[in-house]
Amino acid sequence: MAIIECVPNISEGRRAEVVARIVEAVHRVPGARLLDYSSDASHNRSVLTMAGDRAPLKDAILAMFDIVLAEIDLRTHTGEHPRLGAVDVVPFVPIEDVTMEDCVALAKDTARSVAERFAVPVYLYEEASSNALRKNLEDIRRGEFEGLAAKMATPGWAPDFGPPQPHPTAGACVIGARMPLIAYNINLATDRLEVAKKIAAAIRFSSGGFRYVKAMGVTLADRGIVQVSINLTNYEKTPILRVFEAVKREAERYGVSVLESEIVGLVPSAALIDTAQTAVQLAGFKRTQVLETRLRESD
Amino acid sequence: MAIIECVPNISEGRRAEVVARIVEAVHRVPGARLLDYSSDASHNRSVLTMAGDRAPLKDAILAMFDIVLAEIDLRTHTGEHPRLGAVDVVPFVPIEDVTMEDCVALAKDTARSVAERFAVPVYLYEEASSNALRKNLEDIRRGEFEGLAAKMATPGWAPDFGPPQPHPTAGACVIGARMPLIAYNINLATDRLEVAKKIAAAIRFSSGGFRYVKAMGVTLADRGIVQVSINLTNYEKTPILRVFEAVKREAERYGVSVLESEIVGLVPSAALIDTAQTAVQLAGFKRTQVLETRLRESD
Repeated sequence: MAIIECVPNISEGRRAEVVARIVEAVHRVPGARLLDYSSDASHNRSVLTMAGDRAPLKDAILAMFDIVLAEIDLRTHTGEHPRLGAVDVVPFVPIEDVTMEDCVALAKDTARSVAERFAVPVYLYEEASSNALRKNLEDIRRGEFEGLAAKMATPGWAPDFGPPQPHPTAGACVIGARMPLIAYNINLATDRLEVAKKIAAAIRFSSGGFRYVKAMGVTLADRGIVQVSINLTNYEKTPILRVFEAVKREAERYGVSVLESEIVGLVPSAALIDTAQTAVQLAGFKRTQVLETRLRESD
Repeated sequence: MAIIECVPNISEGRRAEVVARIVEAVHRVPGARLLDYSSDASHNRSVLTMAGDRAPLKDAILAMFDIVLAEIDLRTHTGEHPRLGAVDVVPFVPIEDVTMEDCVALAKDTARSVAERFAVPVYLYEEASSNALRKNLEDIRRGEFEGLAAKMATPGWAPDFGPPQPHPTAGACVIGARMPLIAYNINLATDRLEVAKKIAAAIRFSSGGFRYVKAMGVTLADRGIVQVSINLTNYEKTPILRVFEAVKREAERYGVSVLESEIVGLVPSAALIDTAQTAVQLAGFKRTQVLETRLRESD
């Protein structure tokens, strides 16, 4: 069975009862499994992690819109996190027995239904985007809800689906397909923030580093150390081990050692198995050699 | 649900119709899943890989004995592989949601039933053994079927279950519990067999190396290279990466590079995840962070 992950970001992180109603709506959709959800009050934003096949995930997103449109009004919404819509971003992520193309098709299908049923304009992003200028979420979201009406009126910013102006209370929604994100941090045995910042600059795409790395240097004040905080947006093309080794080598330039690394949240097993394979030069290895994979297949 | 792996070794690898009947008997046991089986004519031996919970695996072993006792006569059996019994060895291996203690209990329970129902003497081995002199399979099997009657008459060699003399046609059976074995080979970019042999000697337990490593140096004639062929008997205590790095370092002493490594057959995902964790100094990582694990748990 196809397993797709879907991680909708909702512009509500303060009213627990509203989040509870959204969660409940997802729970009522047969076949849509809610793996996790968390709310951040200062961001005023909640992130849900769901998994399932195509139809249940689409149903869950539509059910979520029903609640969100009734409850969230972006005209009075404040929070630290940038946002364009009440349901702000909906990425579909291929996990098992499913291709990126399947997730792109699901994103477009969901986008069309959202636009038709709720009159919310939708922008497609990442792998679902057919426009290089509208591939990155940050570019689409720039100007936020407050600048949306003006942005939509400028050439090149008509939405992929739905009306050519914002929904009055829900703004717009960004729907797409992407690889699993890995939140990966590398802690350094130093309190020198400038070292973490220099290493982050060396490895991240935006300043000349790896194509699928976003990174910044931060201080972990309570531990008296610094961290290179990383988002890996495609672990197949920019693997964990390559990033780790690059950070280690860069750190040496400043006489600094890597203390440890950490993965925040979930990681696809393929990313870890790939790390193991590279670390011991494993040749000819097949996923079906993993005992647990074989056990599940013989069910 | 508990998943235990069971890998019975049968002293029949030439008569395909007998092996087919054994396989059929296992297939008829509800809940016992046959993952794999293979026969070797020169060894005159077959190895089955089954998985399931306690009761089905025990039933499968008893069903297997029914066929084996009717079909195999060790008095006329020849083959390269040492053997003590018609059903020679039965290891139970903990895989998921089950402890080694559970597998030891299952081994003893199965051993008792085999002895009672078939009058076959049974020795317990590895983790199920309560006697340090009878822990290793090689020690128990020394003398083989032909020397068994004499061996059983010597002090210290009364079986753990069953009659104090061999079964006339089926000999004895060795039943126990152990960690998953990993068949792990490291290929060297050289044709110098003595280098592979020296490295094997350096890393294997029997000549001063790692506690849970068996190893030998062999030539891969068709590729013109040599290989350090390794059995890892406990990947938790002697991890893959540690062995790989030791081989790499030893190889450097002879000016030789590691070409690649390979895993033959199945490997528990925990062994690969552990390799990844060590390779990138991953701290505080939990198995529940693996996306697929989380997905299965929420079923």
